Amino acid sequence: MNKKYLMTPGPTPVPEDIRSEMAKPMIHHRTKEYQAIFKDVTEGLQKIFKTQGDVFTFTSSGTGAMEASIVNVLSQGDKIIVVRGGKFGERFGDIAKAYGVEVIALDVEWGTAPRPEAIADLLKKNPDVKAVYATLCETSTATMYDIKAIGEIVRKTGALLVVDTISGLGADEFKFDEWGVDIAVGGSQKGLMIPPGLAFCAVSQKAWKAVETSKLPKFYFNFKKYKKAYIDTDTPFTSAITLVIGLKKAIEKITAEGVDNVIARHRKSGVAIRAAAKALGLQVFSKSPSDGVTGIVIPDAVGADNVIKIMKTEYGVTLAGGQDTLKGKIVRAAHMGGIDQEHVIEALKAFEAALAKLGHKFTSGAGVEAAKKVLGV
Amino acid sequence: MNKKYLMTPGPTPVPEDIRSEMAKPMIHHRTKEYQAIFKDVTEGLQKIFKTQGDVFTFTSSGTGAMEASIVNVLSQGDKIIVVRGGKFGERFGDIAKAYGVEVIALDVEWGTAPRPEAIADLLKKNPDVKAVYATLCETSTATMYDIKAIGEIVRKTGALLVVDTISGLGADEFKFDEWGVDIAVGGSQKGLMIPPGLAFCAVSQKAWKAVETSKLPKFYFNFKKYKKAYIDTDTPFTSAITLVIGLKKAIEKITAEGVDNVIARHRKSGVAIRAAAKALGLQVFSKSPSDGVTGIVIPDAVGADNVIKIMKTEYGVTLAGGQDTLKGKIVRAAHMGGIDQEHVIEALKAFEAALAKLGHKFTSGAGVEAAKKVLGV
Repeated sequence: MNKKYLMTPGPTPVPEDIRSEMAKPMIHHRTKEYQAIFKDVTEGLQKIFKTQGDVFTFTSSGTGAMEASIVNVLSQGDKIIVVRGGKFGERFGDIAKAYGVEVIALDVEWGTAPRPEAIADLLKKNPDVKAVYATLCETSTATMYDIKAIGEIVRKTGALLVVDTISGLGADEFKFDEWGVDIAVGGSQKGLMIPPGLAFCAVSQKAWKAVETSKLPKFYFNFKKYKKAYIDTDTPFTSAITLVIGLKKAIEKITAEGVDNVIARHRKSGVAIRAAAKALGLQVFSKSPSDGVTGIVIPDAVGADNVIKIMKTEYGVTLAGGQDTLKGKIVRAAHMGGIDQEHVIEALKAFEAALAKLGHKFTSGAGVEAAKKVLGV
Repeated sequence: MNKKYLMTPGPTPVPEDIRSEMAKPMIHHRTKEYQAIFKDVTEGLQKIFKTQGDVFTFTSSGTGAMEASIVNVLSQGDKIIVVRGGKFGERFGDIAKAYGVEVIALDVEWGTAPRPEAIADLLKKNPDVKAVYATLCETSTATMYDIKAIGEIVRKTGALLVVDTISGLGADEFKFDEWGVDIAVGGSQKGLMIPPGLAFCAVSQKAWKAVETSKLPKFYFNFKKYKKAYIDTDTPFTSAITLVIGLKKAIEKITAEGVDNVIARHRKSGVAIRAAAKALGLQVFSKSPSDGVTGIVIPDAVGADNVIKIMKTEYGVTLAGGQDTLKGKIVRAAHMGGIDQEHVIEALKAFEAALAKLGHKFTSGAGVEAAKKVLGV
């Protein structure tokens, strides 16, 4: 096996046709040629976020756009609810605190999704809350939250609903307008199949009202500058030209297949891997698993780090481990973006081989067969 | 002429070997392989900035790192001096004001460099000034400032010297440690020859003391997070992997030639273009011209926009026009990064052809000959 299989939840593999597109000679960004590309990308992102509203593209990692979702709609001393069920929920809280925003934490057990009623209760107890910050797919625990149900609760209040969709977008189902989301934060290196370096914010009309009263200082991430520049299909600061060109190609691939078909394909991969884990006598970590990344609990006697090491060095398959308290306890396999069925099958073959070497007892081939059955291959 | 010559002051052409490097299959950033690349890049940037101190790499456009140079060392109500001799000097002032910092503007005529004594006077009158913000190459006017002389003045005071070297780095001479600079801001898409998307801050020991007392809110651009992550040769947030890989290749090319040789080559291109302008009966706009970009005044009867249009559509040479009040008055030709002697000669041929078509009187071939003489080709 000489082929490499990168199955980390960001960056994901960048398909070859997208890489070639980005390798073409440099063009200037203040030109009609580039404006047309940027317009296509922005309209494509609207289709993927499922919104008619504004979508802004930042040159930054996802965290930069998370910061944008805070500094553009809040003022010092404002109160927000932050769902903390993993590393990325925690990050929303950390950014808010750095800006003097008061955080009411809704801590949920890692690997579980928040109960929507818990958010309703907190909103009732704290009617002055300005916004609820949640995550579509909490990558660190491979857990999907029920944003639709949370949206039904938050939309009835004056609070905004801000959702980190960085690792979910294009993999887990998401409907910005229909679900009543006010800001969604996205990133380039997950479901969107391009390298890291771009981040996005979709912004609702309700969020724009909060922008008008927000007093937190901002410049580089100031929504108003992006809105003003987009009148000329432009960005306020030099665009990350090659990444945007790559994104245009990625969006063409996604929309050619159909956004809903792409989501359904991801779901199938998720179901397949979960079936494989069960067939191998292993537990899926999350009680509410994402369709873009799966966490599998590895028995201590086998060792998650051993599995990862053998799969990488002997089979060229790169999985991610657990983060923070999950280090050494789980492996995480992404199945989003450019990670296709071939990746899933080859990874499961390598997974079985590693488990066998490490003394785990299971019926050889059972995992691969279970997955193939789901995938219909 | 089928070849395209991009001669804008950012983005500059990305050499083919760098583009191929960036087009390789994606790798993960939390790996030894990537850490080694990131270490090489950071050490290479130290050589180019000419510093032994910290250099941090942000995923952002240059403006993001300009914001970093403000939010990391200042507090609300602090006073700073900002040299405003063009669009980018003004930007420093705009960012500072957005964060509640008081700006004492030193306005200098566009196309001229500030007199160092004017900065000394302002510092004497305002002993509570926390920092002086200046520009190495003010791209909008193609003007180089005497940072060495400004450094001699500022280093004797308690104030920091912060320099925007975004379009100067790798083209105009710059010596961070020797000149007493405290923060230098750089960008990827100019002298460093890679696409836009990365920005840098070099940080002095004196600046670190100001970091300790700074109270402006920050998260994504927080120096301390980058410093802490670099202990493991890592970044606090997902790195723009492909751009960093491209930068490694670009730095290899620059250090193989020798940083000082690269600067000398840029100077030669600058001298050549200035000689060509003179031979064509035209004036160089700046009284203190940069070695990375040259602004040439175009007579109204000829029209700068006409020159740019003809050069682009008929000869494939893209120049930049003037910005703000200089729109329609000047053309700007960059000669930095991947823009080599062939670009300079071909651009001058196209420039002469456009001028002739537009009725400008000059000795045909005089510009090209004057440049060739300087370049020794």
